[in-house]
Amino acid sequence: MTIAPGLLPEGLRDRLPPQAEAGSRLLHRVIVAIGRHGYARVSPPLAEFEEGLVGQLKSAGARDLLRFVDPVSQRTLALRPDITAQVGRIAATRMGHRPRPLRLAYGGPVLKLRATQLRPERELTQAGAELIGTDSLAAVIEILRVAVEALEVAGVTGITVDLTLPDLVETLAAGAMPLPADKVDAVRAMLDAKDAGGLASLGADAYLPFIEAAGPVGPALAKLRAIAGAQTLDKRLEAIEAIVAAIGDRVALTLDPTERHGFEYQTWIGFSLFGDGLSGEIGRGGSYTIVHPDGTEEKAIGFSLFIDPLVDVGLGVVEHRRVFLPLGTDAATGAALRADDWITIAALSESDDAAALGCTHILRGNIPQPI
Amino acid sequence: MTIAPGLLPEGLRDRLPPQAEAGSRLLHRVIVAIGRHGYARVSPPLAEFEEGLVGQLKSAGARDLLRFVDPVSQRTLALRPDITAQVGRIAATRMGHRPRPLRLAYGGPVLKLRATQLRPERELTQAGAELIGTDSLAAVIEILRVAVEALEVAGVTGITVDLTLPDLVETLAAGAMPLPADKVDAVRAMLDAKDAGGLASLGADAYLPFIEAAGPVGPALAKLRAIAGAQTLDKRLEAIEAIVAAIGDRVALTLDPTERHGFEYQTWIGFSLFGDGLSGEIGRGGSYTIVHPDGTEEKAIGFSLFIDPLVDVGLGVVEHRRVFLPLGTDAATGAALRADDWITIAALSESDDAAALGCTHILRGNIPQPI
Repeated sequence: MTIAPGLLPEGLRDRLPPQAEAGSRLLHRVIVAIGRHGYARVSPPLAEFEEGLVGQLKSAGARDLLRFVDPVSQRTLALRPDITAQVGRIAATRMGHRPRPLRLAYGGPVLKLRATQLRPERELTQAGAELIGTDSLAAVIEILRVAVEALEVAGVTGITVDLTLPDLVETLAAGAMPLPADKVDAVRAMLDAKDAGGLASLGADAYLPFIEAAGPVGPALAKLRAIAGAQTLDKRLEAIEAIVAAIGDRVALTLDPTERHGFEYQTWIGFSLFGDGLSGEIGRGGSYTIVHPDGTEEKAIGFSLFIDPLVDVGLGVVEHRRVFLPLGTDAATGAALRADDWITIAALSESDDAAALGCTHILRGNIPQPI
Repeated sequence: MTIAPGLLPEGLRDRLPPQAEAGSRLLHRVIVAIGRHGYARVSPPLAEFEEGLVGQLKSAGARDLLRFVDPVSQRTLALRPDITAQVGRIAATRMGHRPRPLRLAYGGPVLKLRATQLRPERELTQAGAELIGTDSLAAVIEILRVAVEALEVAGVTGITVDLTLPDLVETLAAGAMPLPADKVDAVRAMLDAKDAGGLASLGADAYLPFIEAAGPVGPALAKLRAIAGAQTLDKRLEAIEAIVAAIGDRVALTLDPTERHGFEYQTWIGFSLFGDGLSGEIGRGGSYTIVHPDGTEEKAIGFSLFIDPLVDVGLGVVEHRRVFLPLGTDAATGAALRADDWITIAALSESDDAAALGCTHILRGNIPQPI
């Protein structure tokens, strides 16, 4: 079957003007905003040894790899479906000796094996920051502030941060609210599905109140505090209160304490980011553990932002003043206009049409006149 | 064989600070400079159907593809070794109806099957501009000016533009300096190799003077004009003189009239770009032909710049003022410093060490003090 000219594989697409420029501008703004907080840029390659990449990725991520055999190394390589794991590798190896906390930033394309219903693209632009060496409350607050600021400079408004406590069930099951070890996973799955009947049938009625303890952070915290066993989580609940105190004036905060979907590798805290008029997540992050080549573990926290949904709703588009330079305009005049923030479109022949070429102005008597 | 932690496949590498940031900054600067001349950004995907990509690429490029079978489309895809061909596809299909001349810009990573001796990397960053719908002298001059300006804003000095006339032998062989059709390729190869003996043995002595007609553009042009048959190339020689008049004050110009290596797909003019202290080409371009899905052909001209050699020599690195914010510094103080172009590094614990974290200053009494 011949492929029609210009047809692209499922999930891959061209970005055309003005979206392509908007995507580039948003990525640049986000990376610069992150960098202002001391996060230094790293650029890992688009592909790595499959074996190495799988080792760095969550098990879910490993299923999501586009693989190929590299004729040069004669090994299987995989395209990165995520940059976070590569940054963890760099932090653990080439930058393993650098003083902590180590602040790293990144931005670039990732390629996934499969699209999702929410996002039909398989190539996406990801940007983010990783803070390596600590997952303290101060670290969480910094990371959330940087993420929110980066979204703000990208033009996102009405930001919501949805907090979760990924290891909550595991922690309680081993302590104040005991569960048989072989039931922990099932209870987590029921809580993820908010399935009260399922919880009851597992004999985990004590966990039922967690289903209701989700929503805007104030009432959700109050409900959490009312669950007898959850009171042993005092430090975490205090941490959430501190987060509310730190960023509650800038963003809406919600809490879904047992949400675990997509947070399988997060340790004590995770979060999703949302914005007004944007469907689905526009970022996520949380605390996690980096494993060094010698087996030692290191705490870390970070976030990833997804640039494509922002581009899709029209963020990052800037209206330019475009001036047509008639034949014979000298080079210095064009240069002066560009230095004054004009985009210049030079006539190359008598038939060039200023309006058709999208110019807003024509240079007449050395002055740009509106078309 | 297990892969050592952190080892990357041949030709793929991590960019670390400060080079990663420099690469991102240079790409941004170059793209912005190109955009000021009315070139609108497009972003094609990292991978396409192999069949489609091969159709767009020069035959040399098709040998240079990293291929993989896409489990979703069940087709062979290839990673792009070049972005120019993809921009040509966009110009011929999705933007085929847009008024001409069409000015498009691009920038991003490409992946090649094999590295070269000069450039051991297989993943490279390419940026460039394509002017579609004309390959006139005015178009050549605009493209060269934009390329030179983009290199200048990237910090390149001592720029040399090496011009070539890729179809010169073909044109002369069919006209003023006849050659049997079956000898044209051999003569071109001997000229590429500057092999006088080879030319003589082919009975193509008339072409011997072209070997000497290379070097700084003034003397080379004079030698070209002295070749009896080459005088039929008057329009091209005048074009080169016009190029000298247009950009000869900004760059050094050389001419290698029969150089064909890497210009197999260029039509009447090609060029390579070099800079002081940079080994090898830092860009190239020329005129070419775009084939539309209906078989019609369209003239075009463009250039590609290679960002990696610029990063490798240290261009794009900016020294930042980095101020350490002791514990308890309020958020507004940090924000004010960042707005004043400081990079802020916030203490997260008592043990954070400003000097070890690369800070140049510490905030004391609300004023940054040098460390």
